[in-house]
Amino acid sequence: MLTNVPLTKSWSKGRFIFFLQRSDLMAQVAVMAPDGQVEKIERDGNPAALAALRQMAALMLKAALQHEFDGIRLGAAVAEDDQFYVDSDKDDQQVSADQLDDLAAAMKQIAKDGLKVEFAEVDLDAALAEAGDDQFTNELLKEHAHDGKVALYRLGDAAIVAEAPILVYANVVKHYQLLSVAGAYWKGMSSNPMLQRIYGTVFFNGDDLAADLKARQEAKERDHRVIGNQLDLFFVDPKVGAGLPYWMPKGSTIRRTIERYIIDREVSDDYEHVYTPVLMNLDAYKTSGHWQHYRDDMFPPMDMGDGEMLELRPMNCPSHIQVYKHHIRSYRDLPLRIAELGMMHRYEKSGALSGLQRVREMTLNDGHTFVALNQIQKEFAKILKLIMSVYEDFDITDYTFRLSYRDPKNTDKYYANDEMWEQAQSMLKGAMDDLGLDYYEAEGEAAFYGPKLDIQTKTALGNEETMSTIQLDFMLPERFDLHYVGEDGKQHRPVMIHRGVVGTMERFIAYLTEIYKGAFPTWLAPQQVTIIPVSDDKHGAYADQLAAQLKAANVRVKVDHRNEKMGYKIREAQTQKVPYTLVVGEDEQANGSVSVRKYGEKDQTSLSKQEFLNEILADIASYSRKN
Amino acid sequence: MLTNVPLTKSWSKGRFIFFLQRSDLMAQVAVMAPDGQVEKIERDGNPAALAALRQMAALMLKAALQHEFDGIRLGAAVAEDDQFYVDSDKDDQQVSADQLDDLAAAMKQIAKDGLKVEFAEVDLDAALAEAGDDQFTNELLKEHAHDGKVALYRLGDAAIVAEAPILVYANVVKHYQLLSVAGAYWKGMSSNPMLQRIYGTVFFNGDDLAADLKARQEAKERDHRVIGNQLDLFFVDPKVGAGLPYWMPKGSTIRRTIERYIIDREVSDDYEHVYTPVLMNLDAYKTSGHWQHYRDDMFPPMDMGDGEMLELRPMNCPSHIQVYKHHIRSYRDLPLRIAELGMMHRYEKSGALSGLQRVREMTLNDGHTFVALNQIQKEFAKILKLIMSVYEDFDITDYTFRLSYRDPKNTDKYYANDEMWEQAQSMLKGAMDDLGLDYYEAEGEAAFYGPKLDIQTKTALGNEETMSTIQLDFMLPERFDLHYVGEDGKQHRPVMIHRGVVGTMERFIAYLTEIYKGAFPTWLAPQQVTIIPVSDDKHGAYADQLAAQLKAANVRVKVDHRNEKMGYKIREAQTQKVPYTLVVGEDEQANGSVSVRKYGEKDQTSLSKQEFLNEILADIASYSRKN
Repeated sequence: MLTNVPLTKSWSKGRFIFFLQRSDLMAQVAVMAPDGQVEKIERDGNPAALAALRQMAALMLKAALQHEFDGIRLGAAVAEDDQFYVDSDKDDQQVSADQLDDLAAAMKQIAKDGLKVEFAEVDLDAALAEAGDDQFTNELLKEHAHDGKVALYRLGDAAIVAEAPILVYANVVKHYQLLSVAGAYWKGMSSNPMLQRIYGTVFFNGDDLAADLKARQEAKERDHRVIGNQLDLFFVDPKVGAGLPYWMPKGSTIRRTIERYIIDREVSDDYEHVYTPVLMNLDAYKTSGHWQHYRDDMFPPMDMGDGEMLELRPMNCPSHIQVYKHHIRSYRDLPLRIAELGMMHRYEKSGALSGLQRVREMTLNDGHTFVALNQIQKEFAKILKLIMSVYEDFDITDYTFRLSYRDPKNTDKYYANDEMWEQAQSMLKGAMDDLGLDYYEAEGEAAFYGPKLDIQTKTALGNEETMSTIQLDFMLPERFDLHYVGEDGKQHRPVMIHRGVVGTMERFIAYLTEIYKGAFPTWLAPQQVTIIPVSDDKHGAYADQLAAQLKAANVRVKVDHRNEKMGYKIREAQTQKVPYTLVVGEDEQANGSVSVRKYGEKDQTSLSKQEFLNEILADIASYSRKN
Repeated sequence: MLTNVPLTKSWSKGRFIFFLQRSDLMAQVAVMAPDGQVEKIERDGNPAALAALRQMAALMLKAALQHEFDGIRLGAAVAEDDQFYVDSDKDDQQVSADQLDDLAAAMKQIAKDGLKVEFAEVDLDAALAEAGDDQFTNELLKEHAHDGKVALYRLGDAAIVAEAPILVYANVVKHYQLLSVAGAYWKGMSSNPMLQRIYGTVFFNGDDLAADLKARQEAKERDHRVIGNQLDLFFVDPKVGAGLPYWMPKGSTIRRTIERYIIDREVSDDYEHVYTPVLMNLDAYKTSGHWQHYRDDMFPPMDMGDGEMLELRPMNCPSHIQVYKHHIRSYRDLPLRIAELGMMHRYEKSGALSGLQRVREMTLNDGHTFVALNQIQKEFAKILKLIMSVYEDFDITDYTFRLSYRDPKNTDKYYANDEMWEQAQSMLKGAMDDLGLDYYEAEGEAAFYGPKLDIQTKTALGNEETMSTIQLDFMLPERFDLHYVGEDGKQHRPVMIHRGVVGTMERFIAYLTEIYKGAFPTWLAPQQVTIIPVSDDKHGAYADQLAAQLKAANVRVKVDHRNEKMGYKIREAQTQKVPYTLVVGEDEQANGSVSVRKYGEKDQTSLSKQEFLNEILADIASYSRKN
């Protein structure tokens, strides 16, 4: 359709025809389906065309690898949502990042040679014979064979099994970049050999490629995995446990500071903090219904050999219910607020795991309030105020509210108690209105067991994420047969409110790392002060004495005694995003002062030791808020 | 033998004969073996006689139960080290504590009736027919049958299978007491029905019984399980998980205070605190050797379905080794001190589990220091000083040191490196001598992997317990192939020092509960202050205002607003062992003062609000030390 043809700025009548024809030609691309049929489809703004382009780039990369490295074994050549990749394995050294340029050049030559994809349906035996002793190609061929035959796309000497549509002409592939090399287990299973995976990105035009590379660069700078590595905050090693992060000392300091902060806030907000076991009898999760509905996300139960089946908990609710049930509760005990930094385990597929963002072991800032029906509104407002106040301390300002009700046309899909639903929904709404908050109402988005409020934040990369949640639950009190003795002396059923303020430590710190770009505010910074003596011989002792004074005031400080240039040390303190760098030399030592440079600022100011101490303590005490 | 006959104080010649004869008679008791043979054995100071007495008392209790409760089903009747018990099960209400007197009386009647034990070897079928539909007795009979026959001790209508020696004459059983009733799973398996277990204690004379009952009373008053229940510190419920404690809010406050304290102490002592996962690939425990040598104490591995086997860690060492290995280490990094409150899981048999003392999930105040060989002595001394300083803060004064070396005659039983052993052992000894500490040297008590120091404390009940330990390890650095780059630029092997300061949170708090008898010092007390308004109407507001001021200074305070008599409230604050009780009435409100009563003291003193605040803050800051 002509309406989609981009117009050039410099067109003239004579050239118009030419350009229009070229644009027209370029605006469509030939794509081959896995059955060998070729058709032309629109190029621009068409995800199908882009997917076929990525598939073609993967095949070209495979051909390039084959061309460059004799006897290389090749795994999958895959087009993903936003990139493509090819897996390979070599007897000697694996393909490395500095060989990417050569591979890109080899791809360019393939395009130049005007190669095109040919479809072939061949006998499996013949295909296997052609693959020789490449075990990975052999396996892929066998998997995709039907009735002893396998469908292939061929490009020169290279071939891949025909699965998804692919571009036909190699010369269309012009705007691409090979991005990185990383290890990847064959079929994603850690018991299999590790192959080398080369990632690339490709577009139909240079502008799109440039924009993509820029976004990748930005994402990389904010990526908590990259920053976590640069600042030595944490690591994950699939060999010792996929999705099980190790928090290094610096990351641990951030985490510990947040944990203490949130517990103290909750305790002063009348929560009862507990520790409950990470294991529980499987029966509890049958009672709660988790085992029936959530089993795929749970770890395998452990048979303790004496009739007991233990399960790593996927949620803390049943644990807090045990705490509730341990005593007979009266209306005077309500609202009863049980909170915990509760460690949980959830089974995520290994492919879905990512840094601290998606893990298998996590610690949730969890809380369950047990209330009487008429206390919902007040308690809901109290929780909401706590959440917003905590956000303020972390300088989280970009968030929205989503209130989720049941679908009024499908009430049978929800826990059956019309009166409870009506009353609870209007209480949540009432509380939001009382607080004068804007919110979005989502009918049909409630959980089966009750209405809820989600608080949505934006990550640094612009993705929406549920940070906090307040959920009413009518069901679990029923399933676990919870009671309290009312003022009337009779037994009543409480309502449970599930709430999370900052979510899991893992995801929250991933989020903070990205929004702060690793430059944690002073109160959270693992190292708050670096002291650099101008000459270690002459001023090292003064620096140590200063450090001792700061340490005594609970400031996290280190002296850089290394035998390096001052400029280098200052740069490194900046790279490590230490909030305060103090340079101390002759003058400072004589005056008992310090030369202060704040992170990200060029200027130094001279302060007395006491002035600096006051400044940093005020900074910490105010959660480093700007105002 | 006459030498063992106790002499009476008031003997005369005439009576001498009589007494000696009676003593002689009484000094021996008739005991039947499980084959029906009867012999006389010494009574006094003979554990075998006491065991036979307990077995007899158990049989008599069984007979009494059968006599008192028609159709009762009866499980095991067992003599234990320091008591006996009988399990039973009734269709209607189970046997309860207020029926113990009746049962004791029934036992007395059996003694009076002069019953004696008869031995019988009967056909299993006949015995089963006699037992009727009592499933437990049936099962016991079948288990103990040989060749279709079963050996029984009979006492009137009651019978038990003959397993261990038993007294013959019921009239010898005079000094006994039935102690308590508690639920116990049939065969100790939580999947089986719960029976009712009646415990009793028995002796040959009244003095021994009285002493035993007194010791039981003392033990009960100190028992952390009893105090934990009274003060609502924690609970364990085998139905949701055997050996998996739930820390209630008050116990959690104690634990959190200790955790923060110990982390802060360690961080200021140059430890790097980390968080590492509670799960690890099983391969790591094969490398460490735990799987080969320690498997019975480990939880069952979990098959993650993609070739990964995950194991709940039984120890934190391999986790900290991962942290060490994550970077290339140089001699400049050593000593590297990695510490963690590391949660671990160990499989203890359900019968061995006890309160917080023996659990399956525990959190260890763990640390591993990686040192060069020549740094051992200095680091050892540093750790020891930390431990002793921490003991001081907890007012732990009764402890001894045990230095364990390898057996010089069996050096092949230990990790093979003579030079290392010699050097390390003399370094530990040197450090102890430098610090001027007394210690016991135990040859042959070292671990396979290196020498160690254990610090032995006495529990409140007089048992010796290893509280802290410092262990050198030459083996794990070898097994995990750890290195550091020395000053010479070459790779060297570090030595690992395992150390625990306060052990696991569970065992440490059990220990503290017993030595403090539940009266935790102010800095640890879950609730530090109770405020009691003389009249809630008139002085409740003043009490609340006072509480808010204390809370703002991080004091844990509650106002007792209940509609109860003041004396009752004061007594309850004492029962709950709250360190400070403040009574506020007319005078206090007018003067802005408080009437202070410290726990365990009778006197009240009047202080201004500020004076009281100063006093309690000083108390907390000094770890409530007496001086």
